Amino acid sequence: MTAPSPVKAPATRHRLYYSPGTCALAPHIVLEEIGEPYELHLISASGPRDGEMTSKPEWKAINPKARVPALLGVPGRIGGAENLLTEVPAILIYLARTGPSAQLLPSDPAGEARCIEWMNWLSGNVHTIAFAQIWRPHRFTTGEEGFAAVRTSGRDNITESFAYIEKLLADGRGWAIPEGYTVVDAYLLVFYYWGRCRIGLDMGTLCPAWTRLSELVARRPAVQRALKTHQITIFETE
Amino acid sequence: MTAPSPVKAPATRHRLYYSPGTCALAPHIVLEEIGEPYELHLISASGPRDGEMTSKPEWKAINPKARVPALLGVPGRIGGAENLLTEVPAILIYLARTGPSAQLLPSDPAGEARCIEWMNWLSGNVHTIAFAQIWRPHRFTTGEEGFAAVRTSGRDNITESFAYIEKLLADGRGWAIPEGYTVVDAYLLVFYYWGRCRIGLDMGTLCPAWTRLSELVARRPAVQRALKTHQITIFETE
Ligand SMILES: N[C@@H](CCC(=O)N[C@@H](CS)C(=O)NCC(=O)O)C(=O)O
Ligand SMILES: N[C@@H](CCC(=O)N[C@@H](CS)C(=O)NCC(=O)O)C(=O)O
Repeated sequence: MTAPSPVKAPATRHRLYYSPGTCALAPHIVLEEIGEPYELHLISASGPRDGEMTSKPEWKAINPKARVPALLGVPGRIGGAENLLTEVPAILIYLARTGPSAQLLPSDPAGEARCIEWMNWLSGNVHTIAFAQIWRPHRFTTGEEGFAAVRTSGRDNITESFAYIEKLLADGRGWAIPEGYTVVDAYLLVFYYWGRCRIGLDMGTLCPAWTRLSELVARRPAVQRALKTHQITIFETE
Repeated sequence: MTAPSPVKAPATRHRLYYSPGTCALAPHIVLEEIGEPYELHLISASGPRDGEMTSKPEWKAINPKARVPALLGVPGRIGGAENLLTEVPAILIYLARTGPSAQLLPSDPAGEARCIEWMNWLSGNVHTIAFAQIWRPHRFTTGEEGFAAVRTSGRDNITESFAYIEKLLADGRGWAIPEGYTVVDAYLLVFYYWGRCRIGLDMGTLCPAWTRLSELVARRPAVQRALKTHQITIFETE
């Protein structure tokens, strides 16, 4: 067993801590889009109490939030390993800004703000509330007797937020940010995948515009490579 | 009654939709720091069902999310009024980037990412979950019989997240982003205020480092002006 801190510096500029099928898929896609070498470090989410993701002290010493994704190689600190950056929206904006040739982010302040607006809402309302209510009801109530009602409410919140996403995407735009493909489209794919494959929603019927977008995104070579590492198939025809 | 959409363009570059004492305080502070003229538009949060904040159709037509803050004057759309930007972190980053002389945001990608990291976590975990569990338990469970347990869990989540904020701020840094005062410090003041004045936590004892930071922030002339409009006193000695 190796000492958790300081962590060994990555040989590449960045190391991504990830678990398959989690929201770490989004930064993984973006790293593939940028095309620069990076290290991947698997944090196992299987086993009792989510495997090492939540229960391994070594991981908590690196990331006190004990969540994935986390990106090593960004100046600053949040109380664990030096240079570890957390929170999907922060990681995606950072990668896009430091890998500008991939053109994954508008360069004007309004365009960037629109990306943050999408991602803050997705991260807060759709991930941290709605899906977590289903998967981690203990975060929202104090006793097991309340879990079923929290899960039902989570389903309702997912339905409502997915309807809002569909309404936005169906207004004639081709991408989440109308001007072109951005990190937001990569992030949206995570929720599309969870909706379709993890909780079994009939996404083609419920969210046709989002389905068209997701098919486009899933066909990109960089996305294909990331999905392969996560062993995920979203569409049979991929 | 005026037609809700299209809204009359503001005479100034920006119009901030706000309600006193809400998280709209943060963009309000930042507008004062920047010092450019702006319009304020009050969305009343008092009366049955939160007043017009959640129940007035005119407000929903402008902002389909029916939340404050929202900033008019930023290219793009989220399904209501054209040029309306929502989500505190997006508004703060946008204002800081378009008003660079106030120096409220690091200009390097890592520094900006650290701001987004703080704010995404504050917005998602501390606001959208923890405080909302106390104030809006119906978002987390399906029946009134579950509200008390949701509120208790909200208290626990606030305690845990406030302890993490305190730990970060007590590591020797003078500001949330060690390099200097940023939009994150303005945003943190909202949660400090809610903790101290709205739910009655003994913040001086629980979070001494955060209390020192908040005193510094609250003393800034721009912050004083914003607090006055919201009719808020956080410290008796202000
Ligand atoms: N707000 C964080 C959330 C990260 C998060 O919750 N990740 C999940 C995987 S999708 C996780 O690590 N779950 C383990 C846990 O919640 O304990 C972000 O946007 O990055
Ligand atoms: N994620 C949003 C949350 C905005 C929000 O919930 N604002 C509160 C005031 S602090 C509100 O409008 N509440 C009314 C409601 O929740 O219905 C943000 O960061 O701006």
